[in-house]
Order: sequence, then C-alpha cells, then structure tokens
Amino acid sequence: MDYKKAELEQLKEFYRDRLLEDTLPFWFPKSLDQEYGGYLLMRDRDGSLVDDDKAVWIQGRFSWLLSTLYNTVEQKEEWLAGAKSGVDFLEKYCFDTDGRMFFHTTRDGRPIRKRRYFSSEVFAIVAFAAYSKASGEKKYADLASEVFGRCLNYIQHPEILPAKFTDTRPLKGFSIPMIFIFVAQQLREYTGDIRCNEWIDRWIQEIERDFVKDDIRSVMEQVKPDGSISDHFDGRLLNPGHAIEAAWFILHEARYRNNDPHLIDLGCRMLDYMWERGWDKEHGGILYFRDVYDKPVQEYWQDMKFWWPHNETIIATLLAYTLTGDEKYADWHRLVHDYAYQHFPDKEYGEWFGYLHRDGRVSVPLKGNMFKGPFHLPRQEWYCWQLLENF
Amino acid sequence: MDYKKAELEQLKEFYRDRLLEDTLPFWFPKSLDQEYGGYLLMRDRDGSLVDDDKAVWIQGRFSWLLSTLYNTVEQKEEWLAGAKSGVDFLEKYCFDTDGRMFFHTTRDGRPIRKRRYFSSEVFAIVAFAAYSKASGEKKYADLASEVFGRCLNYIQHPEILPAKFTDTRPLKGFSIPMIFIFVAQQLREYTGDIRCNEWIDRWIQEIERDFVKDDIRSVMEQVKPDGSISDHFDGRLLNPGHAIEAAWFILHEARYRNNDPHLIDLGCRMLDYMWERGWDKEHGGILYFRDVYDKPVQEYWQDMKFWWPHNETIIATLLAYTLTGDEKYADWHRLVHDYAYQHFPDKEYGEWFGYLHRDGRVSVPLKGNMFKGPFHLPRQEWYCWQLLENF
Repeated sequence: MDYKKAELEQLKEFYRDRLLEDTLPFWFPKSLDQEYGGYLLMRDRDGSLVDDDKAVWIQGRFSWLLSTLYNTVEQKEEWLAGAKSGVDFLEKYCFDTDGRMFFHTTRDGRPIRKRRYFSSEVFAIVAFAAYSKASGEKKYADLASEVFGRCLNYIQHPEILPAKFTDTRPLKGFSIPMIFIFVAQQLREYTGDIRCNEWIDRWIQEIERDFVKDDIRSVMEQVKPDGSISDHFDGRLLNPGHAIEAAWFILHEARYRNNDPHLIDLGCRMLDYMWERGWDKEHGGILYFRDVYDKPVQEYWQDMKFWWPHNETIIATLLAYTLTGDEKYADWHRLVHDYAYQHFPDKEYGEWFGYLHRDGRVSVPLKGNMFKGPFHLPRQEWYCWQLLENF
Repeated sequence: MDYKKAELEQLKEFYRDRLLEDTLPFWFPKSLDQEYGGYLLMRDRDGSLVDDDKAVWIQGRFSWLLSTLYNTVEQKEEWLAGAKSGVDFLEKYCFDTDGRMFFHTTRDGRPIRKRRYFSSEVFAIVAFAAYSKASGEKKYADLASEVFGRCLNYIQHPEILPAKFTDTRPLKGFSIPMIFIFVAQQLREYTGDIRCNEWIDRWIQEIERDFVKDDIRSVMEQVKPDGSISDHFDGRLLNPGHAIEAAWFILHEARYRNNDPHLIDLGCRMLDYMWERGWDKEHGGILYFRDVYDKPVQEYWQDMKFWWPHNETIIATLLAYTLTGDEKYADWHRLVHDYAYQHFPDKEYGEWFGYLHRDGRVSVPLKGNMFKGPFHLPRQEWYCWQLLENF
C-alpha cells in the first residue's frame, strides 16, 4: 500500500525527533573524552562506561556523523568541536609509521591491535572529508584524499598487506567494493576528489558482474576471483544486511545521477533478492546470515537479529520506494520499520539494543563495544529524515 | 544425594552404549576419506557432507580418539586403520616448511589457512602419541615428542610466532597451560616423555597462581603477565566450560598421583567457582561466556548453550564425585547430565546438535564444521565409562 503524503510527513518528523531527541543525546556530549580527545563509546545500556578503550573505526564513524550533522542540519559549534576531537585523535594516535592505521587503542591512544583489514582507514577518510567541509580547512580534504589513495593501493596490490589465507583457493569479498562506494560518495561530496566517479563506476560494475546472481536471486558475500561460487562454508555464506546496505549505496548513486534507471534497477534487484533471503517470515526482522543453498551456516549466531541490518533495510526500502513508487517497497519499509522500532529501542535509557535473539529477546544489552557505536542508527535516522525532506 | 552403586553401574552402561551405538557410528567408518586419507567431518544433521575441507586440529582429534579406543577398549583393526589414516594425512599434508602446522586444508591436503596459534600441533601431538602405542611404531612417539618440543619453544619464545596484539597491554591466556596439561598427560601415558611431569607441575602452578582467584571465586580466561585482572572486555571475559575442562585435567592428575589432596582441592575449587558462574539457573545448562564483574559481555552469543562445555562438565562433576564422595558433585552431575542428554541429542539421526539457544532451541543443526567434530562428546562418553569401570 502506498504511503500517503501525511504519512511520509509523519515519518520524516519521527526520524528527526528520534535522532535529535533520543539517539544523539545518548552519546553526545557525554562521550567526548575531554582529556585525550576522541570518544568514550563502550557503554552499558544505562550509558555507564564499561571499557575506556577506543575502536578506531568507530572513532571515525562518530566524527563523520558530527560533521555531517553540522554540514546538513545546523551549524552548531558543539557538533563542530565534537567532530574535531575525533579527527584530532585519529590524526595524532591512530596511524602507524607505515601509514596504515591501528584498529584498537587505549584511551590515551597507545595501540593495542592493528588488523589485516583497513576498516579504520575507511572511516577516517569519511571523517576527514566531512570535517574538511565543516571546518573549511583544506588540510583535512588533502588528508582524506591521501588515505583514500593508500587504500586504492591496498586494493590494487593486496600483497602489500599480511595475508589471512594461502593462495590455494582465493576468494574476493563484497566488503571492499561495497564500502568504498560509500567512501567515494562522501569524498566526492566534500572534497570533489576527481578519482571518485571512475572508482564508483568500477566498484558498481564489479558488484553487478561478480556478486549479483540473477539466476539464483542472490547477492554473494565472497566469490572466486572470476565471480563463480565456491561451494564451501565461506563461499556459500550470505549476509543480507550487508548486501542491502550496498543496495542503498547504489540507489543513492542512482539518485545522484538523475535517477539513472540502470542503477535503480540494480539496487532494487539486490534489495529484492536479499529481502527474500533475509526477512524472517516467522518472527519478523532481518536474519544475520543465510546459506546460498539453504544449507546450515557454520556461524552459530546466524539467526540473531542485529541492529544494523535493520537500519540499512529501513533506508534501502524507503529509498527504493521514493525512486520507484512501487508500493511493495512501502510495504517492506513498514514491516522493517515497525519491527525495528518495536524491538530494538531501549525504552528506559534510550538508543537501541544491538543484539536480539531470533525471537526478539535481548541477548546483550550493551549500547557500545568494539563493533557497535553511534553510526548505523543515527545515520539511518538522519538519512531518512533528509530524504523525506527533499522528496 | 549420593549415587547408589546400581545407578553408577547404569551410568557406566549408558555412556558405553551411547559411545559405541550412537556417537561413534555417526562418524565411523563413513567419514574415512578413502581417496586422500584423513576424515571428511563437516556434516549436516543427517550425516550428509556439507563441506569437504579439513580442519587440521579436528583431524588430529579424531585420530587420537580412534587410537584411544584401540588402546583402551578393544584392539579392533578398523580403529587402528582409521587412526592411521589420520596420522598419515597430518604427516603428509599438514606441516609447513617452517615446522609449524596449517589450520585448514582442502580435501586433498592443499593448505588454505595457517593461524597464529598452534591448536593443530596440540592435537597432532596426542594423535601421534596415541597411535605410537596402538601401532607399536616408535617413529610416532618420536614425532609426538618432536612437535611437543617445538610447542614448548613457542610457549617460551612467543616472539617466534606472529603477534596479534602490540606490547601495549599484554595479556596471557589460560588456553596454553590448560590444554598442554592434557597434551603432556597423553604424551606421558603413551611415550613416557620425561619432560612431561615437570611441565605439568609448572602449568598447574601457573593456573593456581595466576588464573584461579579465590577471593572472587573465579577462574580467569586471560590475565596480565603478573596474574592481575585487566578491567576491559577481554580481561573480564570468563569461559566456564573451558575452566571446568581444566578442572578435570587437574583432577585427572590428582588421581594419577594417588589422589593428591592438593590437586583434588584445586580442581574442585575451579569446578565450584565456574559452576556457580556458568550454570544457568533459569533454563539449565552451562552458559558460554560470563563477565567476571557481571557486566555485559561483548560477544553476543554469550548466553548460548554449546555442546562441549556440557561434555566437560559431565566429566568434571563425575570425577569430583568419585574423588571426594561429596554428594554435591553427584547432584551437579545429575543436573548437567540430564540437561545435556535431554537437549543435545538428535533423536532422528544420532550424535548431538552443537549449538542451542539459551532456552534449548537448536540454532544450527550441523554435526561437524571447522570447530565441531568427533571429540568432546565421544571423549566424555569414553572417559566416564572408563572411570566408572575402574571405580
């Protein structure tokens, strides 16, 4: 059933109010680390700090969010100062001497762990890019472009990084083209880096060519280098929330390119396939993992409901609806929005729980840890609000 | 309530029958890889193969089990031949040129992954040791001692292995002293390696000094090098099943040393503390993770019920009961035995499910994967049967 104009207006206000009156106040300003810079984000359900370590990628994410609010919502000085605290911490403590970034530091910035992956870099780039716009300081645009260039080099020369697997049966992951579409979109928006359009085209083409399987209606998470399916646990594993997140990055690109019909079609196909595979018809919500051939998944938490796939699916369905007018997407948006806002919010202390069992019971009440922080939920509320503002 | 003699007799027959008529037939002989050697163990609930890769540590575990049955139950030629298939595969395909072992190979023995840890070596040692006794071939005793020596070197010089963390805030893990007590016990039994007693003493002393906390009634999973608690997610994390497994290794040592009272006391304290922290008073069963200060645990599957902590707790409570006669342990043994045999067995296809939700529903029906295979369950059934045979 189509959304009526008044309903969309209500939705817009709902997302705005949740963001500004519930989600953001849970984290800000109390998470600002006045002593060392950056943010103290590993918090229990009531907001009390359970660990003062810092996950570098989440430092970048929150700094990006604060700059983005400053750039798009209101030029609040406290948001700008908050964003600066994050970029300062990243710049001062989070780079190793080889130019790569750490993943996990102590509160005062001493490195605990550096990973093989470059997820810290991903969110440092968007934090620097958004802050360059917010502050007007070109230095941060340059820094964002420099780290982006390093990442392009890792992508083109993966042998630079330590290998997790041998060359016996190589697989390539969906994560890289997926997340770098978002990175390049942000970098383009705030710095105008001229490499972005070409790379976005390449990553979208790679996803369409190698990861989207129309014959079996699926988006793969890992494939062989030639795009074929590896019939082992790892090759069969699907992550519906991840694929749906990529779907809306592509739909966002379609919108940026004057509603490019091919990109709308691609994003909607990805959403369709992974809604079919991910939506839990029994309990509602998006399942975490599936097997492409419906075999059992090795990861035992596979049927849990994590917060973030719901944020990504709320965005993707709303964006698909605004781009196509297909009432199927309005129906799906209602389903996932209602499920999420009925099950995840902590009515007592605000924000969302992150980890529910399949039937909706809370598994761990943490609001923040090495993997959850102020990102997917506030980004969703901000994006949907802004989308409906301009619809 | 104490166990009556007839009840113990029934229990003994129960464990024997389950092992020989249910658990072992699920895996053997059908898992023997007639083409490449080793075992095909990644199986769905009905026994069908879902992945033909090989987890090296589980190859070692199953080979150890078959030799152990041959050494202690009956000299069946098929068990000896089955054990040989595993040691041959390990020897032929699973060592890298630097003497370290791979973790994951293809069916035909091409390496896919080598980890930082030496869990493959742990189970290769016990497989070689048990097979040396079964076959009478001294070559395998020498091989077991050689790999054991390499592991002692890794333990004393951890800088040889790739580091996961920086030196900023080092922690040492319970896993090493814990699992190597078992390894050295096996090596001593089958090869008489003269290093074993001294090392078992050192590891037990390390556990008692650094990991067992009488003041807060806990066994830690990771501590600072001086044995103090690190108040972060990783330092607070408890793994009750793991600590209880170590408790029975120490009780086994107590029995070997003519019921050494200090070791009985130590093993029982560890069991007591972790039963209190791990037993789920609401649903029954052993919870997977707990936080030492009852803060929320970062790992979202923390309240699931895995098969193996139940196997280890069945052994530990029965062994504690036979060593102390304390009826508390008979009560606990009844509780965990009844919970486990009511919830885990697959009544249709045999063997146990591995992964239940907190309330006992099955999460993943797999019988074998990279982490589950024929080890904890058959070892428990074998050990408890043998214990009651000689009680």
